[in-house]
Amino acid sequence: MAARADSRAPGIEALRNAFERRLARALRERAAGPARLGQALRYAALSPGKRVRPLLTLAACEAVGGSWTRALPAAVAIECAHAFSLVHDDLPAMDDDDYRRGRLTTHRKFGEALGVLAGDALLAFAFEELSRLADDGVPAARVVEAVRRLGHATGAEELVGGQALDIAAEGRKPSARLVRDIHERKTGALFGAALALGAIAGDADLRTVDALEQAGRMAGLAFQIQDDLLNVSAASLRALGKRPGTDAARGKATYPAAVGEPRARREVTTLLKSVRGAVARRCAKPDRLLQLIEAVGKRER
Amino acid sequence: MAARADSRAPGIEALRNAFERRLARALRERAAGPARLGQALRYAALSPGKRVRPLLTLAACEAVGGSWTRALPAAVAIECAHAFSLVHDDLPAMDDDDYRRGRLTTHRKFGEALGVLAGDALLAFAFEELSRLADDGVPAARVVEAVRRLGHATGAEELVGGQALDIAAEGRKPSARLVRDIHERKTGALFGAALALGAIAGDADLRTVDALEQAGRMAGLAFQIQDDLLNVSAASLRALGKRPGTDAARGKATYPAAVGEPRARREVTTLLKSVRGAVARRCAKPDRLLQLIEAVGKRER
Repeated sequence: MAARADSRAPGIEALRNAFERRLARALRERAAGPARLGQALRYAALSPGKRVRPLLTLAACEAVGGSWTRALPAAVAIECAHAFSLVHDDLPAMDDDDYRRGRLTTHRKFGEALGVLAGDALLAFAFEELSRLADDGVPAARVVEAVRRLGHATGAEELVGGQALDIAAEGRKPSARLVRDIHERKTGALFGAALALGAIAGDADLRTVDALEQAGRMAGLAFQIQDDLLNVSAASLRALGKRPGTDAARGKATYPAAVGEPRARREVTTLLKSVRGAVARRCAKPDRLLQLIEAVGKRER
Repeated sequence: MAARADSRAPGIEALRNAFERRLARALRERAAGPARLGQALRYAALSPGKRVRPLLTLAACEAVGGSWTRALPAAVAIECAHAFSLVHDDLPAMDDDDYRRGRLTTHRKFGEALGVLAGDALLAFAFEELSRLADDGVPAARVVEAVRRLGHATGAEELVGGQALDIAAEGRKPSARLVRDIHERKTGALFGAALALGAIAGDADLRTVDALEQAGRMAGLAFQIQDDLLNVSAASLRALGKRPGTDAARGKATYPAAVGEPRARREVTTLLKSVRGAVARRCAKPDRLLQLIEAVGKRER
């Protein structure tokens, strides 16, 4: 926790607080669910997290000149889509994890059936919430564009496809190209959608939306390689919230294992430089977005 | 197969053929996915089925005066959402079914991980496809309305919530009210969305959309009670495609078990009468929609 406090710059804190309130209220009011389902999905979505992705959405909206509050439904959608993927990745049929962020995983706490269903409900809720962008005055044609991008980013070609590739690669020594492909789909695509949806809410033109989506994709790849690097480093337990070396032990595809640590570090630096360049070129008010990207590079948030 | 041939009235056949082509092409072109994921989700979504829900969508669009071809993206979305729910319901953590419609279930054929992922990808794809209504000239504000309704119908409060209730009720003797609640959520909500999305694509006013959603909900409930009735009847193997009595054997909540067969039969009749009334009242060209609803009552399609 001490490591995180450093990165809580006051500029970001307002966004984070507003987001936390909005997420909790949205789930309570519109995804209560019967039986213990509502509990399970709130447990999954409201678990202590860094909220990197939704903060990127809010900051991207601001960066293109919009008011970040307008992007709150998109930020909730992005975080729910992320929570969906974590809950399903942890299932016994997938990574079979008992703990995440120091707490029992959702299926270990509520049973496997509710683990599957909580993930499902979070994915459906992401789209329901995203449609609410229109309530805050985002033009309907742009909301439709946002839905299409989130659908694609979470589907067979991207996030879910990345998980399928990851599972197929387990136990083999994958090429650098394959690991990159997995990371781009599993992490890059949702980071890309996070920036794109923020830019859409902020009324950016479609070329800017595309450029920021691409930048987000690279930021996500950098974030994931950084995660791999922390995982091999023995000093990382606190920063990562899980035991180091676990990826290697279970035969997970990591980028340092494929290309070596020095090259992996260089790629993170190169990627983030490109991301900063794209953001600075495209955005009128890039400060908070650049600040978040800096934190992504250090994997602080 | 012989039993089904009777209900293949020529009026419906054109819709069904166009739908099958569109579904197959959409999945091939936009949800190919890496590894065996694409295969798994096509296996799940293109399995021989009656296509009741997407046909209702197309017929509802026509009934309110639209061209049914305009509703094809919504019909694909509805069927993918339905396929998602079947794949996940069959998982070992849920109903643990090895067979559906005489073929291995998706997770039995492709492994449990791909079962979970194929379902996930189908749900995400439903929303991506739904956004394509806008490409065929449906006004964007109406597409956003369709997304919100599908998100709600498939989420914690409805479809997924119904499955959570169903699992929680297993092995107990549930009240008639609870079984009705489960059926309304698990089956009624998606039938309701099927009609609502068709009406939205056909440019109906929102009061008509609401009325048809409500009618669809009742039709879904009738469909499910009819399914329960066939399940208890020993002569039903051919009509149902599964062994009769299986629901009772596994302690599934059925409506005839809760209220008795005679009352269950009467309720189907009453529900369908209300559905026909609402459709006739609200729609300018209700013929094909009424024809489909007739078939729902006989559970032919």
